[in-house]
Amino acid sequence: MALVVQKYGGTSVADIERIENVARKVIKAREAKNDLVVVVSAMAGETDRLIRLAHSAAPDPIEREYDVLIASGEQVSVALLSIVLNRMGCKAKSYLAYQVKIITDGDFTRARILKIDRSLIQEDLRQGYVAVVAGFQGIDRKNNVTTLGRGGSDTSAVALAAALGADVCEIYTDVDGVYTADPNICDNARLLKKICYEEMLELASAGAKVLHPRSVELAKKYEVPVYVRSSFNDGAGTLVTKEDKDMEKGVVSGVTYDRDQAKITVIHVPDRPGVAARLFTPLSDENIPVDMIIQNASIDGFTDLTFTVSRKDIGAVRRLLEISAKEVGAQGLQFDEHIAKVSIVGVGMRSHAGVASKMFATLAKEGINILMISTSEIKISCAIEAKYTELAVRVLHDAFGLEQES
Amino acid sequence: MALVVQKYGGTSVADIERIENVARKVIKAREAKNDLVVVVSAMAGETDRLIRLAHSAAPDPIEREYDVLIASGEQVSVALLSIVLNRMGCKAKSYLAYQVKIITDGDFTRARILKIDRSLIQEDLRQGYVAVVAGFQGIDRKNNVTTLGRGGSDTSAVALAAALGADVCEIYTDVDGVYTADPNICDNARLLKKICYEEMLELASAGAKVLHPRSVELAKKYEVPVYVRSSFNDGAGTLVTKEDKDMEKGVVSGVTYDRDQAKITVIHVPDRPGVAARLFTPLSDENIPVDMIIQNASIDGFTDLTFTVSRKDIGAVRRLLEISAKEVGAQGLQFDEHIAKVSIVGVGMRSHAGVASKMFATLAKEGINILMISTSEIKISCAIEAKYTELAVRVLHDAFGLEQES
Repeated sequence: MALVVQKYGGTSVADIERIENVARKVIKAREAKNDLVVVVSAMAGETDRLIRLAHSAAPDPIEREYDVLIASGEQVSVALLSIVLNRMGCKAKSYLAYQVKIITDGDFTRARILKIDRSLIQEDLRQGYVAVVAGFQGIDRKNNVTTLGRGGSDTSAVALAAALGADVCEIYTDVDGVYTADPNICDNARLLKKICYEEMLELASAGAKVLHPRSVELAKKYEVPVYVRSSFNDGAGTLVTKEDKDMEKGVVSGVTYDRDQAKITVIHVPDRPGVAARLFTPLSDENIPVDMIIQNASIDGFTDLTFTVSRKDIGAVRRLLEISAKEVGAQGLQFDEHIAKVSIVGVGMRSHAGVASKMFATLAKEGINILMISTSEIKISCAIEAKYTELAVRVLHDAFGLEQES
Repeated sequence: MALVVQKYGGTSVADIERIENVARKVIKAREAKNDLVVVVSAMAGETDRLIRLAHSAAPDPIEREYDVLIASGEQVSVALLSIVLNRMGCKAKSYLAYQVKIITDGDFTRARILKIDRSLIQEDLRQGYVAVVAGFQGIDRKNNVTTLGRGGSDTSAVALAAALGADVCEIYTDVDGVYTADPNICDNARLLKKICYEEMLELASAGAKVLHPRSVELAKKYEVPVYVRSSFNDGAGTLVTKEDKDMEKGVVSGVTYDRDQAKITVIHVPDRPGVAARLFTPLSDENIPVDMIIQNASIDGFTDLTFTVSRKDIGAVRRLLEISAKEVGAQGLQFDEHIAKVSIVGVGMRSHAGVASKMFATLAKEGINILMISTSEIKISCAIEAKYTELAVRVLHDAFGLEQES
């Protein structure tokens, strides 16, 4: 008897008909003699409705209460799925975060899971129940409701799979799995059968929306095999797992992009120790993640510092930098919201030279100017003008032969 | 510094504008140097929406999950009120049942409060917070979500007031207080300044919707003074309190009615011990309350047994009685859904003779036939044909001079 954790996203439980569809999948998995834990998100549109309510109550709603409000969405969907499962003759019980004891830190709206108590769920599984667990929510050590941030239900599912020692975690979504590129942009994008944690993490961090990066980190840490699958068909999907020899055949596994980027340049900054810290500390204090950073060579003791942030943070960044840039004696600030980031990812890069130069040459050939570059061991990202995004994805996909299985 | 528990019903928190109105009332009470616990219901329409969802998921939704589903409505409203209060500069914190520890029995959809832990709220009050508590919900000893049944938020408020030793419990609603009769039916109905627990309990049980009977029982038991007030104006409302000498001046305090009645007659039942038990036990086993019961004088060892139930239960009653009536050898069943119950209530009845005969004569004079009668020490109820309901209320209101303050 295997223990399977399944996670269904908001579009999979958008209405009663779709919830019935999910229930049939759950029952099928039960009939295949599996113990089942099912994690669900809020019904599609529900979280947005609750967020709108919050913002009509206050422009900047107090975070503790914001979490209480939006966590109610998952409460509705676990109850409905459990009602439908019981109606269909399948014993099922819903669990809210406080019932399982999904303990997080106290960082409202973006809490991190610290600990999951597995005893209650294990006991109910032994008694033949399907455990239907509310995703996205937790409680902190003081019993306050917390939420894990957007995409947090993926993290809930993987964390539960890790805590329970599940054999597999299946993430059901509205796409068929992980593709070599966004199929909406790239006609010949190919569904990957398998991808390793490291690549998935880089893809997710570089903008691929299919899995939440935090969930991939957790899966990697606890070596949870994760299947990404469509909830609307019976396709095998993509297995996210440990790296193996097969995976190294191809140099690049996927191309991805992120349009949610804005570029800031701090001009003519004195190049002395402590300046970068003075500029970036206020951003990290307000939990604003900085992505790419480049610093020009210093001329006469002055340099330009350029970095990217998420577009939604640009207002806060402007407010904070206008103070700190003045303090460090910079000449001024430049903002550019018309940029995007294009990335290629693959563990094969480690053993292949010339990948970066091939990427730069491919973009240059189309007249696409590279504004910034950042690399990791298995990823190369380029910031480009936003209008070239689709073109860049397509030519890179072709250049690295991704339409062919390697 | 007084401790005040306020309760706001669904229409008082129906949208953000009304929630802001509630917040202003709360802040006003804070400024008058009170410690404040605020109990709220779900936004008007929300509970109905959730109930519809439940019934679209299953005709007979499993009760444990039904409670998880509908309890989410109060979670939304406590969060929104807390967001608005904080925005307005008033420190406030929301509390769900599991956080307070409002412990109930495990009787889903109609749970009874067993115990309330006051420590967390008291601590937060000391720190200057307004405590905003979700009404209607509890948890059982196994941490399952329970709900208290319709009108349960009144009960939550009074139970909290009792547990915390509050000086007063204020129930804010969409009417101005308790009237001598329904003002929609009776033009000269008068707002009562004061009414005693016993009368309020009889009125609530006899169909007056202004307070939930269970909340009045609790208020009586713990001697919590309860004000019933409008949340849309600053009227003083009605004080529900212990009986005092003033109250005995009038014979009758109010007239009320209940249209949610159906009458069942079991015809030609053998009049022997155990028959009534055989007929009524299956009903109580399914939690179907029976209201008025009459049994005709026995002729030749046979009798007719007539009783009333809530109209929504008529299907279940029919199903159960068709079995048990046959078993006890009854001749048949008769159903009548076109009846209503009209009641007069007043502690003054205890010391005044002739109240019942005056009631019967008043109805007779209008040609209204009395189908059944039931009485308590301070109440007389008559079942009549439903079409006479309004007329009966008006003539009884006049006959007992209720338009005049006694």
